[in-house]
Amino acid sequence: MSFVALPGFRDAFPDALARRRRIFDVWRQVATRYGFEEYDGPPLEPLELYTQKSGEEIVEQLYTFTDKGGRSVALRPEMTPTLARMVAQRAAQLRKPIRWFSIPQLFRYERQQRGRLREHFQLNMDIIGEAGPLADAEVIAAAVDVVRALGFGPGEVRVRVSDRRVLAELLTDELGVREPELPGVLTALDKYERAGAAAQAGLGAALGGDAARTEGVARFAARLRDPAPLLATPAAAPLRACVGHLAATGLGAFVEVDFRVVRGLAYYTGIVFELFDAKRELRAICGGGRYDNLLKDVGGVDLPCVGFGMGDVVLGELIAARDGPAAGSPAVDVFVAVVGAEDRPSALALAHALRERGIRVEFALRTQALGKQLELAAARGARHAVVIGPSEREAGEAVVRALETGAEARVSLEHLATEYGFA
Amino acid sequence: MSFVALPGFRDAFPDALARRRRIFDVWRQVATRYGFEEYDGPPLEPLELYTQKSGEEIVEQLYTFTDKGGRSVALRPEMTPTLARMVAQRAAQLRKPIRWFSIPQLFRYERQQRGRLREHFQLNMDIIGEAGPLADAEVIAAAVDVVRALGFGPGEVRVRVSDRRVLAELLTDELGVREPELPGVLTALDKYERAGAAAQAGLGAALGGDAARTEGVARFAARLRDPAPLLATPAAAPLRACVGHLAATGLGAFVEVDFRVVRGLAYYTGIVFELFDAKRELRAICGGGRYDNLLKDVGGVDLPCVGFGMGDVVLGELIAARDGPAAGSPAVDVFVAVVGAEDRPSALALAHALRERGIRVEFALRTQALGKQLELAAARGARHAVVIGPSEREAGEAVVRALETGAEARVSLEHLATEYGFA
Repeated sequence: MSFVALPGFRDAFPDALARRRRIFDVWRQVATRYGFEEYDGPPLEPLELYTQKSGEEIVEQLYTFTDKGGRSVALRPEMTPTLARMVAQRAAQLRKPIRWFSIPQLFRYERQQRGRLREHFQLNMDIIGEAGPLADAEVIAAAVDVVRALGFGPGEVRVRVSDRRVLAELLTDELGVREPELPGVLTALDKYERAGAAAQAGLGAALGGDAARTEGVARFAARLRDPAPLLATPAAAPLRACVGHLAATGLGAFVEVDFRVVRGLAYYTGIVFELFDAKRELRAICGGGRYDNLLKDVGGVDLPCVGFGMGDVVLGELIAARDGPAAGSPAVDVFVAVVGAEDRPSALALAHALRERGIRVEFALRTQALGKQLELAAARGARHAVVIGPSEREAGEAVVRALETGAEARVSLEHLATEYGFA
Repeated sequence: MSFVALPGFRDAFPDALARRRRIFDVWRQVATRYGFEEYDGPPLEPLELYTQKSGEEIVEQLYTFTDKGGRSVALRPEMTPTLARMVAQRAAQLRKPIRWFSIPQLFRYERQQRGRLREHFQLNMDIIGEAGPLADAEVIAAAVDVVRALGFGPGEVRVRVSDRRVLAELLTDELGVREPELPGVLTALDKYERAGAAAQAGLGAALGGDAARTEGVARFAARLRDPAPLLATPAAAPLRACVGHLAATGLGAFVEVDFRVVRGLAYYTGIVFELFDAKRELRAICGGGRYDNLLKDVGGVDLPCVGFGMGDVVLGELIAARDGPAAGSPAVDVFVAVVGAEDRPSALALAHALRERGIRVEFALRTQALGKQLELAAARGARHAVVIGPSEREAGEAVVRALETGAEARVSLEHLATEYGFA
C-alpha cells in the first residue's frame, strides 16, 4: 500500500527545502533590517473572518469545512484578516506605527488545473497606524529590497505602482460610476489588462448593463496605458509623493507608475502595487497596497494599513530560471571514522566535542571497514575525515585527512576537540 | 464585530514569536550539527495515512474532515507517516543512513479541556536505514543536546530509556502474553505509571479478561521500578550498548534506564525514550524510539527507523519557569530622524544605506517634531538616533546621538553609510 500527497500539496525533500529556506532567510533578514517584528497566527480560522471583507476572489477559493465541534472553519487563504484581528485585540497597547511581518503557509481550494498548487508560503509585511505615502513607500522599498537581496536588479524585476483613489475619482466624477458600483468596476478593471475585451462583459455587469457608461469606462481603460495624464491630477498627490520617496531611497530604477494595476482584493483603498519579472513571463512576484478600512471592519479599531504579500512559488521560479537546477550542498563538515569498534568511545567523545563547536559531524552508525566509512564521508560531501585507530588513540591523536586532496596530518585529540581549524 | 482565534489555537504576538524562534533556532542548529537535513511535508494529508498504523491514541484525536473533492483528509497529528511516505518514494536513490529533521506544526482534535492546545510545533529527527543501537544513541544524544543548548543540565532534565523488546520477551516467554495481545498490553503498561491501579482494567481488557494473566502482568508492572534485573537479560544487549554509547559521548549524567517508559504509539518496536524535567512537574519534553516496521507498512520499503518528536510547548514552559517573563528585545538598532521635511530625501538615502549594511533602521513615517521622533526611537529600544537637519546636510554630515547617555557626535554621511560602527 502506497500513498502520495494530496493534489496541490508539495512534499519538500531536503534539496527543495534548502531552496525554500534561502528565500525565508532573505525575507526575515530584509524585514528585520526594516525594523519589522515577526508574528504568526493559526493556519485554521473561523470562516466568517474571510466571508465578510476579503473580496469574492478569495472567498470562492476557500479551503473550508465544518469541524467536529460544528464550527465553520477555513484554512487561511491570506494573512491580512488574521493580522487585523490580532492588532484589534491589542490596538490600545501597541505603539504606532506597528511594523509587523509574518511568513505563513496559505491555502486555497480552487479547481485543480495544470498542477496548480493549493498551498504556498508568503511573506507578509504591514505598517499599521500611518496613512501617509511614506508608509506606502516603506513597504514597497522592502519588497524591492527582497528581490535585490536575492541578486535581481531593475533589468530583471520591476514594481508597478498605482492608486485606486485616482481611478475612483475619475470614475465617479467623470464617468458616472456610482459609489456602490465602484468595487465591481475596479475588479473588472483589474482583469482588463490580462483579459482585454473579455473583461468588458464584467464591466457591463458591474454597471448594471448600462451600455453608455460601460463604453465610457472601457474607453478610459484603454487609455490607462499612458500614466502621465492621471499622474498629473490632484488626486495623484500621494502617489507622486510615494514615487519621490522611493527615488530618494535609491530604488527609483525599479519603479513604474501604471494605472492598469488595480489588484483583485476588494479591501484596497489607496496605493496598490505589484512586483513582476521584467520580461512578464511569470505571474506577479508580490502584490500589495493600502487598506484603510479593514481593521475597522474586522476588529472595530480604526487604523490605516498598508502591506503586501510575496509568495515563495514565483520567486522560486525566478531564481531557478536564473540559476538553473541548484546543486545540493553538503550536509556535513567532518566525518569521524574509526579503525575498530574499540576506537568507538574516543570517536564518540571527539564527535560530540566538535559538534559543541558548531561543526557539522557525522560518523558511521555501525562497525564497518575504514574504506566504507570514507565512502560515506565522500558521499555526504564532508571536507575532512578524522580517523581514530589504536595507535593514534594510544598517542592521544587522530589523523585528519582532507578528502579532496588526500593530504593527512596527525593532530592531538585535545587540539581537535577545542580549537583545530578545519580549513 | 470582533473575532477571536479558534479554541486551542494560538495567536503568536511578536514577544511570543521571539520565544518560539529561539527554540526553532536551537532545534535547527543542533540538528544541523548532527548532520541532519531538513525536509517538510503538507500539513494536510489523506486520512488513511494515519488510520492504518499510528495507534489508537492518535487516530481518536485526529482533526479530520471531508474536503470539497470528497476526500477524507486530516490535519497532520504527527510527522512520522509523512516521513515514511516521502522516504518510500525515493528509497532507492537516498544514501543510507538517511538523517532528516523537520519542524512541523501538528494538530489534534480532542475534547477541549483546561485550555489544552489543538496545535503545537515539534522538532522531528529520524535516522532511517540503520538498525543498531548506535543510531538510537545518536538521536537520543541530539535530543539531550537541544536541552543542553538551551542551558539545562542533568539536574534539570533527564532522559529515561527503555526497550520494548525486553518487555515483550518477558511478557511472551514468562507471563503468557500472546503476540496479538502485545500491543494492547504495552499500551496498558504505558499508562501504568501515571494511572496506577486504574490502568489494571485496561490490562485486563488487553488480556481478554483473563484474571490470572492480568494479575501476573500487574505484579510484573509493579516491579518495573527497579531496572537492574531486566537490564541484565540477554534481550537488553542493544539497550546496554545504547547507554554505553551515550556515556562515551559524555551525556551519561542525563540518562536513566527505566522500563516503565513504554510510549503510547503502537508502531514502536525497540528502544523507546523520553526527556522530562527532573522535578517531574511537566509533561514529557520529548518522546521517541525505534519503529522498524512503519516504512514497510506505509510505503512498502523495508528500512529500520529511529527518531523522536520534541514539542515547543513543554520546552517553552521549562524555559519560562527558569527565566521568568521574557523581556521584549529591541526591534531596531538605529533611528534616523529629520529636522524638517526637506531633510527627508537625505534621511531616506542614509536609512537605506544602513539597512544595506544589515543594520535595523526605522524612521518616522510622517513629518513630526524632533522630540516626537526621539520618543518613538526610545520606545523602539534603538541605541542610536541619527539626526539630519539643514546645517548638517549642508556639511554632508549628521549627528549621531547615543540614546542611553545622550552623547552626540557629528559624523559624515559618507562614513555613516559605509562603515561607521554604532558601538
